[in-house]
Amino acid sequence: MKKINVSILGASGYTGAELIRLLKEHPRVNISHLTASRHAGCKLPEVFPHLGGITDLELSSSDPSLIPDDTDVIFAALPHGASAELIGEIYERDVKIVDLGADFRLREGTYRDWYGDHPCTHLLEDAIYGIPELNAEQISEAKLVANPGCYPTSSILPLAPLLKNGMVKTNGIIIDSKSGASGAGRNPSLDLHFCEVSEGMKAYKIGGHRHTPEIEQVFSDLLDENVEVVFTPHLIPISRGILSTIYVNLSGVYQTRELLDALGQFYKNSSFVRILPEGTFPNTSCVKGSNFCDIGVKTNPEGKTAILVCAIDNLVKGASGQAIQNMNIMLDLPENLGLECVPLYP
Amino acid sequence: MKKINVSILGASGYTGAELIRLLKEHPRVNISHLTASRHAGCKLPEVFPHLGGITDLELSSSDPSLIPDDTDVIFAALPHGASAELIGEIYERDVKIVDLGADFRLREGTYRDWYGDHPCTHLLEDAIYGIPELNAEQISEAKLVANPGCYPTSSILPLAPLLKNGMVKTNGIIIDSKSGASGAGRNPSLDLHFCEVSEGMKAYKIGGHRHTPEIEQVFSDLLDENVEVVFTPHLIPISRGILSTIYVNLSGVYQTRELLDALGQFYKNSSFVRILPEGTFPNTSCVKGSNFCDIGVKTNPEGKTAILVCAIDNLVKGASGQAIQNMNIMLDLPENLGLECVPLYP
Amino acid sequence: MKKINVSILGASGYTGAELIRLLKEHPRVNISHLTASRHAGCKLPEVFPHLGGITDLELSSSDPSLIPDDTDVIFAALPHGASAELIGEIYERDVKIVDLGADFRLREGTYRDWYGDHPCTHLLEDAIYGIPELNAEQISEAKLVANPGCYPTSSILPLAPLLKNGMVKTNGIIIDSKSGASGAGRNPSLDLHFCEVSEGMKAYKIGGHRHTPEIEQVFSDLLDENVEVVFTPHLIPISRGILSTIYVNLSGVYQTRELLDALGQFYKNSSFVRILPEGTFPNTSCVKGSNFCDIGVKTNPEGKTAILVCAIDNLVKGASGQAIQNMNIMLDLPENLGLECVPLYP
Amino acid sequence: MKKINVSILGASGYTGAELIRLLKEHPRVNISHLTASRHAGCKLPEVFPHLGGITDLELSSSDPSLIPDDTDVIFAALPHGASAELIGEIYERDVKIVDLGADFRLREGTYRDWYGDHPCTHLLEDAIYGIPELNAEQISEAKLVANPGCYPTSSILPLAPLLKNGMVKTNGIIIDSKSGASGAGRNPSLDLHFCEVSEGMKAYKIGGHRHTPEIEQVFSDLLDENVEVVFTPHLIPISRGILSTIYVNLSGVYQTRELLDALGQFYKNSSFVRILPEGTFPNTSCVKGSNFCDIGVKTNPEGKTAILVCAIDNLVKGASGQAIQNMNIMLDLPENLGLECVPLYP
Repeated sequence: MKKINVSILGASGYTGAELIRLLKEHPRVNISHLTASRHAGCKLPEVFPHLGGITDLELSSSDPSLIPDDTDVIFAALPHGASAELIGEIYERDVKIVDLGADFRLREGTYRDWYGDHPCTHLLEDAIYGIPELNAEQISEAKLVANPGCYPTSSILPLAPLLKNGMVKTNGIIIDSKSGASGAGRNPSLDLHFCEVSEGMKAYKIGGHRHTPEIEQVFSDLLDENVEVVFTPHLIPISRGILSTIYVNLSGVYQTRELLDALGQFYKNSSFVRILPEGTFPNTSCVKGSNFCDIGVKTNPEGKTAILVCAIDNLVKGASGQAIQNMNIMLDLPENLGLECVPLYP
Repeated sequence: MKKINVSILGASGYTGAELIRLLKEHPRVNISHLTASRHAGCKLPEVFPHLGGITDLELSSSDPSLIPDDTDVIFAALPHGASAELIGEIYERDVKIVDLGADFRLREGTYRDWYGDHPCTHLLEDAIYGIPELNAEQISEAKLVANPGCYPTSSILPLAPLLKNGMVKTNGIIIDSKSGASGAGRNPSLDLHFCEVSEGMKAYKIGGHRHTPEIEQVFSDLLDENVEVVFTPHLIPISRGILSTIYVNLSGVYQTRELLDALGQFYKNSSFVRILPEGTFPNTSCVKGSNFCDIGVKTNPEGKTAILVCAIDNLVKGASGQAIQNMNIMLDLPENLGLECVPLYP
Repeated sequence: MKKINVSILGASGYTGAELIRLLKEHPRVNISHLTASRHAGCKLPEVFPHLGGITDLELSSSDPSLIPDDTDVIFAALPHGASAELIGEIYERDVKIVDLGADFRLREGTYRDWYGDHPCTHLLEDAIYGIPELNAEQISEAKLVANPGCYPTSSILPLAPLLKNGMVKTNGIIIDSKSGASGAGRNPSLDLHFCEVSEGMKAYKIGGHRHTPEIEQVFSDLLDENVEVVFTPHLIPISRGILSTIYVNLSGVYQTRELLDALGQFYKNSSFVRILPEGTFPNTSCVKGSNFCDIGVKTNPEGKTAILVCAIDNLVKGASGQAIQNMNIMLDLPENLGLECVPLYP
Repeated sequence: MKKINVSILGASGYTGAELIRLLKEHPRVNISHLTASRHAGCKLPEVFPHLGGITDLELSSSDPSLIPDDTDVIFAALPHGASAELIGEIYERDVKIVDLGADFRLREGTYRDWYGDHPCTHLLEDAIYGIPELNAEQISEAKLVANPGCYPTSSILPLAPLLKNGMVKTNGIIIDSKSGASGAGRNPSLDLHFCEVSEGMKAYKIGGHRHTPEIEQVFSDLLDENVEVVFTPHLIPISRGILSTIYVNLSGVYQTRELLDALGQFYKNSSFVRILPEGTFPNTSCVKGSNFCDIGVKTNPEGKTAILVCAIDNLVKGASGQAIQNMNIMLDLPENLGLECVPLYP
């Protein structure tokens, strides 16, 4: 069968490397082009020694004219702003595009508030926010998919079904998220220096993380009303994994079992969302390296509030795995094709 | 000056070792007796090699008749139940007692609900719950102090002043706590096996951790009304440290600055509570090995809700350091005597 | 194509879980039977939550009569002694067997010296020590393969070619190996308690680790002379990975380039051994989760001694991956079938 | 008693912070001056939040004229080159100087080979290499002490006594050292990025680490003959700790007991070297935060070779602790004054 030619723009970061890892196991994909401006001319294993012997592609500069004509799918794993600009330049081509950055996730006004002027506003309407479990149909018809942020993915998957069916109230949602360090990328900084992260933990950007408006926009769109959430990210000394502990008010009296059933029903055909048995809760180490999203639930004894806990691998379901899942859907392939790798444990 | 003779019951656990570490630097203390039933007859460094050359005391069995007559202070770091029983047997002696376990923290009914029958109820009225920053006066007159749990310490210190002065509402308090593994003690179990903890994180005992009633009792007593909290503990792959992220509703409209000022005022004479400058938040690695409690605050833009973040070393301010602070107060010594060790960073 | 029915005896340990992870990605394998005496009757995800949704097989007791008749391959991941006994009972069946334990690695006398009496001596002659890069032909004809230990694998792969071609002297070989904690298995013990391992490192079983005679036997057989090595294992606070730093005397004057060429030549058709470019050295994180073995070399300026550094994932190339590689060869499949997963980085 | 006024040049690195931590517990020291060019004008806690409330000194630029006149002791924790230059400028003052960098450790020719031209050669003869356990007398009379490197400290302490008394041969010494990441300092770089270090390990600078000539010079001076060693450093994902595993040839036939006795005898009056009981070996976690150096030994059965294992905290006995120990001796104070802090475990 004809291979799908894939180009990865920004292949020298962790999400780029993760795209390569996962796409190498995709039976239909041929990785044909990789860019990394700062490393243009390098062989991939000079930047990522773990990929030695996997592919001998050379990293190219980000010049869009270098993207091969026969490219079928472009993954952009670039800094915000740069991504929109480059996508603008190549948009007329006959390709599908998945942008792993923030540029096409937000409406224009919200984008401006949190990131500054958008370099390519005319494409914003085209872009589909790609949570496959929620809007696969739209994704299947999209030319440009905005791949969700890692924190939003871990917040939306447990909450959306229960907001949609009215079991959870829209007010008072608190999302306490804990992330491993790979979510902050591969650029050296004091904050991410080994000794500064190791054996510590901290909250950061309290009340001001850019994933907050992303979560709020998704929920507001879903319910057609304005939804606000409290979102607090934390840095934990592990490489991979996000655990989101979510506190909600229930709109009626519900027991744990009922919430689990509702989630189980909603995700019954989903390849990657695992609703855990009552009394058990997720551990990020159980999803490491996989596209799984594990969800556990517990209501309070009165059945009026609930705690939802969600674990994903931030680099897979929170980034590159979900991007490939989106690609699969855009190409009418099974959503789990090439994505069935088992979590690496321990 | 005459030395204070100290006996540590249950010296083979992490809190026991931490008592020894800290007391060796206390200018007035002489450690004269150590017990550890399972290791009776061993020299201390056989159980804790890091203490080689520090003390050559032999570990004794838990037989209370072996506690030397000239003992001035007894620290009990024993399993719940066992602690109360043993303290009952020696209570008539002329000693001060600090119990690091749960036996004297709760009222009888609550204790029964969460731990079972109390083996020594007649002492419950005598016992003073020992948060030195809140009730130093009572502690100074106590014979028996119940040293608070690690999670409660990290919850009470940021919340108590703001509940007391009415800035924080009593309803809707959510405490999302993250702890290192040493809080679970030194007994081997699959849950605490290196590979099971490393590179993962999880919530546990959701809605059912025994520190919940302890926190609620303290707040209820403080305000003389029934206070309930949502408390969710998490296991993080570090050895030491608790970070509690606390979500509260404010009773009026307050800005970050006002809450920080109130806390700063309350703790202005405290040796160990550090209120962080506006815009900065605690990291557990900044309190490691020390008796410090670091607190940061941020209100939402409307000034109606706030997030309090608190970091302690669970083995120091959350256990052994606070126990020594309590001892100091019981003996009319400066609360920080022997406890001024600087955090170990990194 | 007909599936290969695989039975895994001892599926509740880390090597068992790793066999399942890898075999699920093997296009020809059907996992049809799992045993774990202590967990008989449990569903697999009760023992390994990360495998939820992967397979719903029930764990069975170790009774050999329960192994299905249509089993093609048996992997034994059992304690030594137990393994040989069970293999003895089923040996007459028409199956291929890969034993991941120590029972069939050593000659009888050596086994007795290090492990005690062998329960099934008559099979020792049949068993082939399975390092596919060295003796694929013998493996292809074997009924019973003894899968090498993790430390020996990391020692043999860099050394064997250079001993065989005479570049390295047999005297004075020093192997300083560092291993992650998963090599010690999943049984809880104080030595492997999170807080005891974390933020520390140590040498252990100096001069007395059971992998020493295994390494020596392989080299002695290879050269038909008695070879002794100094082997020192260390415990490092990571879950996966062995790094062996090997110090050797050269039999002539050689430069780094020459040793690298010799290794490159020897492994030129090998799927999994990566000889690193001159001046670069392996990192265990670059092989994590994969069957790769990375080797780097440097001679001293005089060209008379050399340092070889080898990195493997102890659970993959050091155990379950190599076992599947052996299976592939025993069944005349490509050695890398189902084993091409890319390292998980970071 | 009059306080000793101490100035720390280069206070914004890990060794600077560690000097502050330890000196705050020194009963005779007053920290009166701190420099950190890049952070001049900052309060210390802005650079090191863990030091909040410990000292409110402002960091000053490195201008030597700012060093107060009443300074008694200067610790220089500066990059090599910069250190010698600055020390040259202030050398005429009536101060004692401990340089924690490499500038005064090597003879001129060796320095030039490994670091380049020395900016201040005329002071090289004055400088005393300060291993207090070996040459306390010289140190006590020194004006300028070169504080040893971390790796050399962990190599010299176990080896020097056995080389000196002739039990260990000078040829064939192999030192396989493993270090935590703090040894590489606090400057951000990809190599020390959390995700690059975590869950991995590697050898680096094989055959070319600058601590090699330092070790060789010490042994050559000690024996008055040319001694060469093989030294291989490794990076391990912990913050603190060096473990050196040392392989030696014995000059006669000796048993473990004899080597331990010789070491025990040599260090019998030493405050910080702990010779471990036969059959036990050091763990870096048992010296963490302390100035201890733990040594274990095992000979081979024939008594012709031995393995020495040594653990130190690279920031304490490998840097700042040893620097203070040197200061104590230079000032005729007990070597352990202010340095008796107990290891932080776990």
